[in-house]
Amino acid sequence: MDNFFSVNDVVNLNQLLEKAKSVKENPMKNPELGKHKTLGLIFFNSSLRTRLSSQKAAYNLGMNVITMNVGSDSWLLELEDGTVMDGAKAEHIREAAEVISQYCDFIGIRCFADLVDKKEDEKEKVLHGFMKYASVPIINLESSTLHPLQSLADIITIEGHKKTTKPKVVLTWAPHPKALPQAVPNSFAEWITETDYDFVITHPKGYELSDKFTKGAKVEYDQQKAFEGADFIYAKNWCASEPYGQAACKDKDWTVDAELMAKTNNAKFMHCLPVRRNMIVSDEVLDSENAIHIDQAANRVVSMQTILEEFLKK
Amino acid sequence: MDNFFSVNDVVNLNQLLEKAKSVKENPMKNPELGKHKTLGLIFFNSSLRTRLSSQKAAYNLGMNVITMNVGSDSWLLELEDGTVMDGAKAEHIREAAEVISQYCDFIGIRCFADLVDKKEDEKEKVLHGFMKYASVPIINLESSTLHPLQSLADIITIEGHKKTTKPKVVLTWAPHPKALPQAVPNSFAEWITETDYDFVITHPKGYELSDKFTKGAKVEYDQQKAFEGADFIYAKNWCASEPYGQAACKDKDWTVDAELMAKTNNAKFMHCLPVRRNMIVSDEVLDSENAIHIDQAANRVVSMQTILEEFLKK
Amino acid sequence: MDNFFSVNDVVNLNQLLEKAKSVKENPMKNPELGKHKTLGLIFFNSSLRTRLSSQKAAYNLGMNVITMNVGSDSWLLELEDGTVMDGAKAEHIREAAEVISQYCDFIGIRCFADLVDKKEDEKEKVLHGFMKYASVPIINLESSTLHPLQSLADIITIEGHKKTTKPKVVLTWAPHPKALPQAVPNSFAEWITETDYDFVITHPKGYELSDKFTKGAKVEYDQQKAFEGADFIYAKNWCASEPYGQAACKDKDWTVDAELMAKTNNAKFMHCLPVRRNMIVSDEVLDSENAIHIDQAANRVVSMQTILEEFLKK
Repeated sequence: MDNFFSVNDVVNLNQLLEKAKSVKENPMKNPELGKHKTLGLIFFNSSLRTRLSSQKAAYNLGMNVITMNVGSDSWLLELEDGTVMDGAKAEHIREAAEVISQYCDFIGIRCFADLVDKKEDEKEKVLHGFMKYASVPIINLESSTLHPLQSLADIITIEGHKKTTKPKVVLTWAPHPKALPQAVPNSFAEWITETDYDFVITHPKGYELSDKFTKGAKVEYDQQKAFEGADFIYAKNWCASEPYGQAACKDKDWTVDAELMAKTNNAKFMHCLPVRRNMIVSDEVLDSENAIHIDQAANRVVSMQTILEEFLKK
Repeated sequence: MDNFFSVNDVVNLNQLLEKAKSVKENPMKNPELGKHKTLGLIFFNSSLRTRLSSQKAAYNLGMNVITMNVGSDSWLLELEDGTVMDGAKAEHIREAAEVISQYCDFIGIRCFADLVDKKEDEKEKVLHGFMKYASVPIINLESSTLHPLQSLADIITIEGHKKTTKPKVVLTWAPHPKALPQAVPNSFAEWITETDYDFVITHPKGYELSDKFTKGAKVEYDQQKAFEGADFIYAKNWCASEPYGQAACKDKDWTVDAELMAKTNNAKFMHCLPVRRNMIVSDEVLDSENAIHIDQAANRVVSMQTILEEFLKK
Repeated sequence: MDNFFSVNDVVNLNQLLEKAKSVKENPMKNPELGKHKTLGLIFFNSSLRTRLSSQKAAYNLGMNVITMNVGSDSWLLELEDGTVMDGAKAEHIREAAEVISQYCDFIGIRCFADLVDKKEDEKEKVLHGFMKYASVPIINLESSTLHPLQSLADIITIEGHKKTTKPKVVLTWAPHPKALPQAVPNSFAEWITETDYDFVITHPKGYELSDKFTKGAKVEYDQQKAFEGADFIYAKNWCASEPYGQAACKDKDWTVDAELMAKTNNAKFMHCLPVRRNMIVSDEVLDSENAIHIDQAANRVVSMQTILEEFLKK
């Protein structure tokens, strides 16, 4: 693994999940593996879970951590080659990546989608720029189109709670007051299609995710039908695909409530958080015993630590 | 001690002060007590002393620290149950507290008063919410109405400088250009009334603190009279009580100066800092040998370390 | 060395460079030298290289680090004595310095020039205030007029690449879209004049640096002539000297390009970064093998670690 940008960087998902299981069982097994190594965390966008869980994972391995909130405005990077840098962009991504590589052994980068032009977002210029120019591994802390540490945590969570070898996992769109990136659902689809699970995506028309990520996964536009017999319901809002980035619909018909959950096979409820109560999901469902969102959040430490161990053991 | 929210969480103040004394004498006595433990510090408001002293205290115990500046605007928490979260608030305090508990062994929270509605501020919704939902101890880094780590540092300071068993301690209001919260004076009163000290509060009419915190402590509206025979003068501005949160009066008659200090029993001068020179206190007094505000600031490490040791030794 | 404010704090530059060489060869030689010591880093202005390299240097020595971004606006310090603090300034620099000294063993301060009044900037009120009132060593992380950690890294870089005992080193002004402080060129000049190098400064008329820092170094207004036979070209923009702080000229005649470099003795190209490509320097030069700006950035860890070791070994 040169970088951790997407599921495509994982050589063997089953082996990775085995390792994750062992990390979860004993997080303090390798307290000196990362000694004298430094993890740099660069945030172009705000972060709570990623920020805290990444630091915790690094500390469990005895690493040092340097965090930097650069803001998407405060440190404008030039991403194109050959330009005359006489405007607002103070540094070229080439120098940024080369320089941070001098100070850190691994670099995590968070940089959200602009939600203006889908093709531009899919170019992933910031993450790809860092991967091109850095001399150390780059770890995706959520990019324009992907959030692989979340997806790995999601699968670790499903593995921990599944009661059959091939559970039915349903990714359902849910309403939200503002347009959100597609990184979490894209990434979840990209990872789940690498497993043996029975996977169904459900959303209103107009919210199609790129086939680049869903890889032919089944889409069922009838949410009720999709929920039938489900073992896991993963709720998430994302913005419209056409026109891209459009303000999300607030149609509460799609809110996950007890009535909908009753159609499932006593499914576990998942969400990556933060979650809007009574928009994405009703209080009743989120406060039920079937909700495993907090375990999912806890598994963010496991996913990060597993990836760090992979890099450190190389 | 489940949490450290107020003096009411202290089982035995004298024993706590004994421990604090021993921490002050030898801060590096337990450099591994907190090994592999993580202290999370969440700041909804800015901080200098609290931020630095808390980290120093944790480092003295070998702990890891994760700090997060969330700002009171940048991460709006829903504090009420049952609402439809379709507005600006991105996360419910329940998930926030449950999630951070997955990453940290102790969580410190700073969240100031709004100074709009006294009853609302006294509800302490943020701290109480975190205490209700977190699965790890919550430490008050200054809330709407209290600042217990400051108060504990204040008493440690008095204990270190007192020349009699029962010193006369005077809390005096002093002028300031803008309205400030009542957390420091409330908390100081609440702690001091647990000691044997002779305690007097002096302030202009209209600046009364809640009896909930002062617990019947003597109030003397004549500042000069209050200062007579005092061993310790603790100066602090706070906002008017009625109308609550009103811009503070800048009446320099209440500024602590050498003339006022001359009425005392050669009293030590205290302030929690930051202090407005020649508003709260004259240069002459603050630069005198009787000023012990820097020792007070140094004792912020001692108070935090004492509380952390209490939690770690459980 | 009581503080590290400028080259004047260095007792023996050659000895310091010897130490730096040994730090560069084996940065992990003293992994416990700074154990239980705390480095505080206070940023009134934004920072990337300084922030990361300082933390990395401290970690190499086993130190704890506390960083604080105060912003030049968010924590306004009163710098004058005797004022009535009834305005926006919340704390006097005296208390700030005394208090932070209680929590940190060394304090690094970054505070840029205002670029309004040259005499005011040269007073260095923030750094001098901290040095006056702090009880622990102050380290200059770039002040109004100086950037000594950068200059030390620059000389370490030259020492590592020089092919003759007395190389010709040219500091050249280069265009930039906005006015920049003079701290880097001032400091570079101040350090280089302490060496045996053949030193020449070249810039358009009106961009003269204070003789206080250049100490009679040769100024050659003809850039082409200055470059002749140079072994090292150090490019940097800085603001006009008269009227001070004026928006920098964008005259691309001064951009360092291959044609100019051809006049040199196959010179190495240096820049402190961040660098505006095709303004300060052409892509062709920056992407050539002769560009050593990344090594320069890497040496920021070496310079900070060398200074920290000096203080720790006292």
